[in-house]
Amino acid sequence: MNLDNASQQELQSWEKKLVVKYQQFKDADLKLDLTRGKPGNAQLDLADAMEDLPINKMILEDGTDLRNYGGLDGIPAARKLGGEMLGLPEAEVICGDHSSLSLMYLYMLHAYYHGSQGADTAWAKESDVKFLAIVPGYDRHFTICEEFGIKLINVDIKDDGPDMDRVEELVSKDPQIKGMWCVPKYSNPTGCVYSDKVVKRIAELGKIAGSNFRVMWDNAYGVHDLRENPQQLANVMDYCRKYETEDNLILTASTSKITVAGGGISFLGASVENLEHFRKRLAVMSIGPNKLNQQRHLIFLKNIEGVRSHMQKHAELLRPKFNMVQKHLEIGLAGKAMGNWCNPEGGYFVSFNSNPGLAKEIIRLSGDAGVKLTPAGATFPYSLDPEDENIRLAPTFPSVEDLDQAMQVFVTCVQLASVRQRM
Amino acid sequence: MNLDNASQQELQSWEKKLVVKYQQFKDADLKLDLTRGKPGNAQLDLADAMEDLPINKMILEDGTDLRNYGGLDGIPAARKLGGEMLGLPEAEVICGDHSSLSLMYLYMLHAYYHGSQGADTAWAKESDVKFLAIVPGYDRHFTICEEFGIKLINVDIKDDGPDMDRVEELVSKDPQIKGMWCVPKYSNPTGCVYSDKVVKRIAELGKIAGSNFRVMWDNAYGVHDLRENPQQLANVMDYCRKYETEDNLILTASTSKITVAGGGISFLGASVENLEHFRKRLAVMSIGPNKLNQQRHLIFLKNIEGVRSHMQKHAELLRPKFNMVQKHLEIGLAGKAMGNWCNPEGGYFVSFNSNPGLAKEIIRLSGDAGVKLTPAGATFPYSLDPEDENIRLAPTFPSVEDLDQAMQVFVTCVQLASVRQRM
Repeated sequence: MNLDNASQQELQSWEKKLVVKYQQFKDADLKLDLTRGKPGNAQLDLADAMEDLPINKMILEDGTDLRNYGGLDGIPAARKLGGEMLGLPEAEVICGDHSSLSLMYLYMLHAYYHGSQGADTAWAKESDVKFLAIVPGYDRHFTICEEFGIKLINVDIKDDGPDMDRVEELVSKDPQIKGMWCVPKYSNPTGCVYSDKVVKRIAELGKIAGSNFRVMWDNAYGVHDLRENPQQLANVMDYCRKYETEDNLILTASTSKITVAGGGISFLGASVENLEHFRKRLAVMSIGPNKLNQQRHLIFLKNIEGVRSHMQKHAELLRPKFNMVQKHLEIGLAGKAMGNWCNPEGGYFVSFNSNPGLAKEIIRLSGDAGVKLTPAGATFPYSLDPEDENIRLAPTFPSVEDLDQAMQVFVTCVQLASVRQRM
Repeated sequence: MNLDNASQQELQSWEKKLVVKYQQFKDADLKLDLTRGKPGNAQLDLADAMEDLPINKMILEDGTDLRNYGGLDGIPAARKLGGEMLGLPEAEVICGDHSSLSLMYLYMLHAYYHGSQGADTAWAKESDVKFLAIVPGYDRHFTICEEFGIKLINVDIKDDGPDMDRVEELVSKDPQIKGMWCVPKYSNPTGCVYSDKVVKRIAELGKIAGSNFRVMWDNAYGVHDLRENPQQLANVMDYCRKYETEDNLILTASTSKITVAGGGISFLGASVENLEHFRKRLAVMSIGPNKLNQQRHLIFLKNIEGVRSHMQKHAELLRPKFNMVQKHLEIGLAGKAMGNWCNPEGGYFVSFNSNPGLAKEIIRLSGDAGVKLTPAGATFPYSLDPEDENIRLAPTFPSVEDLDQAMQVFVTCVQLASVRQRM
């Protein structure tokens, strides 16, 4: 039955049936969790062999002792691997420790207080600093801005990436907008891949926004394909070179969701000049990253082909989980005017939009029935979802069986909240 | 011959002989380096067994999967080990990644911009922020202050720690002094251990300096004894509890010079309330430290007794090196009025003070003869040694044979510069 065609009487009878079903879930005393965008145990098992490091691999052929201090940029082979993942030459990549979030934080710190290209360019010198938040998006990006007092302006994401008309309009009008956050492939949480045209327009932004604007290109899911022949993401740096906006771009990636979530290696890519400035910050706070962990990764993953073949094993584990989510959404909600959702071809999330005003209520109902969902608003700056509609589902960590159960509850809660709203 | 008793004629004849000797070193085309305060290869070999991590040790008994995200404070057993090293309960310790320097930087960032106990306490709110630099000291401490624009005021170190009369005088007079850097055991570079009395007076400083003052207690060499029955360092937090100044103290340590210099684990100790505030910063920039590396350390080191017995092996490797430095200084310079030096019972450095005005010249002469020394001034803020006298010798990395050679050159250069100064 479609909500839009249902009579009040039909709605009431429907609601009664849903209440019974919902109560059954409550009585089952479930404890399920769809909040955690983290790898499942079986995914982590895939990299267990990485943890041993042969003694004869701790000293490089050029004599570099990976156990000792030094090497601020990371080891050359790791930078090369990062370059392959980000589409950059080795000279434009720094390999850090396990958290690309830390690299993003430090770059923002650097640009804010010290200036991305020297003290004169410090954002902090300006009265009011703003960033574009592509929404729904990744909460930790927004939190970094909030930490520095950078004001966030929402721009909607579409099926092919950010609403670029709106982005260009805002950036043209307001020189205080100093950057934007992007998750260009399998965007968190909508799962879209930025189209060539959008990538091209983002690369051109520097021409409008000026030299002090930074696109924070968090390519967290660059190799996290679920299906065969995945949609390709254009090389944004190639476009930037064409438009001479290389300095406007900062790229990041990590192996957190390739090898070990808590012990991977991370990459920051940028123009040689940007890196020159950024190194000054790194040099104050560290004598270099953990090179042994980088070496572990290189022995295990070898190169980009090794990464891709490893990620096929991840895909095999994740496909049934994403399929399970889609199955329940299709069966329970398709054609009912109760919301819409994405069917991503990779990444870690499924984004669901309820009818406006219902996200909080659905999350509350699910929680009461033992299924924990990401808090409402989490995908928006300041946790404020203006339409109260977006819900981020994270299917990677639970088992397929738990997902089956959890999605039944979720669908029932969406139905119940949607029917009640029309009564 | 003592410089003070030598006639001009004697000096001239002495100088001639030294020039011949010096030229011989130059002709030998040496390439030696006494600048690097890093472990020797044989020290690193001692921990090679640590690099393998058994698969059945990656999940803790409580179910925590060390491979996955989470655990901002580090794993409990690692915090406990850090507590044993710093003299604190587990609740007052956070275990981080391999760089305690990063933890210091982040704590200073936190206190400066965000406030150690909330926004009202941010140092940045005050026009002029100052720190005491105990000199000669560790350049990277000073660089962190320079990064934040914190002005450094020199206070001399004595045989039992900082000149506390001067410290108390400065802190009483100037409320803009917000903290001081300490390396309390085997101080970098003088090698002294702070006496009980000095530790007690440092713990009392909070009463004079106020709640926003922070003693940065970098106990980098807490277990790095070279001799039997080493001088003990008092527990500074115990004194702070007595004087109710617990919040004025931040302690750090790491295993960089215990296990692997580039891949150890680090600790930050502080009152529960200080940690509460500091976690807000950590949470923005990271999802937690590398727990697998912490587990590697726990399996290998086990506990503080394991650390101590491991450090005895380090001492066996380092003792001949420190002895070699002392031998040359004694033979070549004792009783000649050409400077003075320390004979540390642990740590990583030997501090040498030439006659005033000669450090740069000695370093230049040594460099020209193929022996690289730490740049003049490196142990002072802004690289300015007011007397141009301090030279930091780092004997841990070169082989004993190289040290033998390098110290002959060094002593000759000290003699040559000293004699010439009197001519």
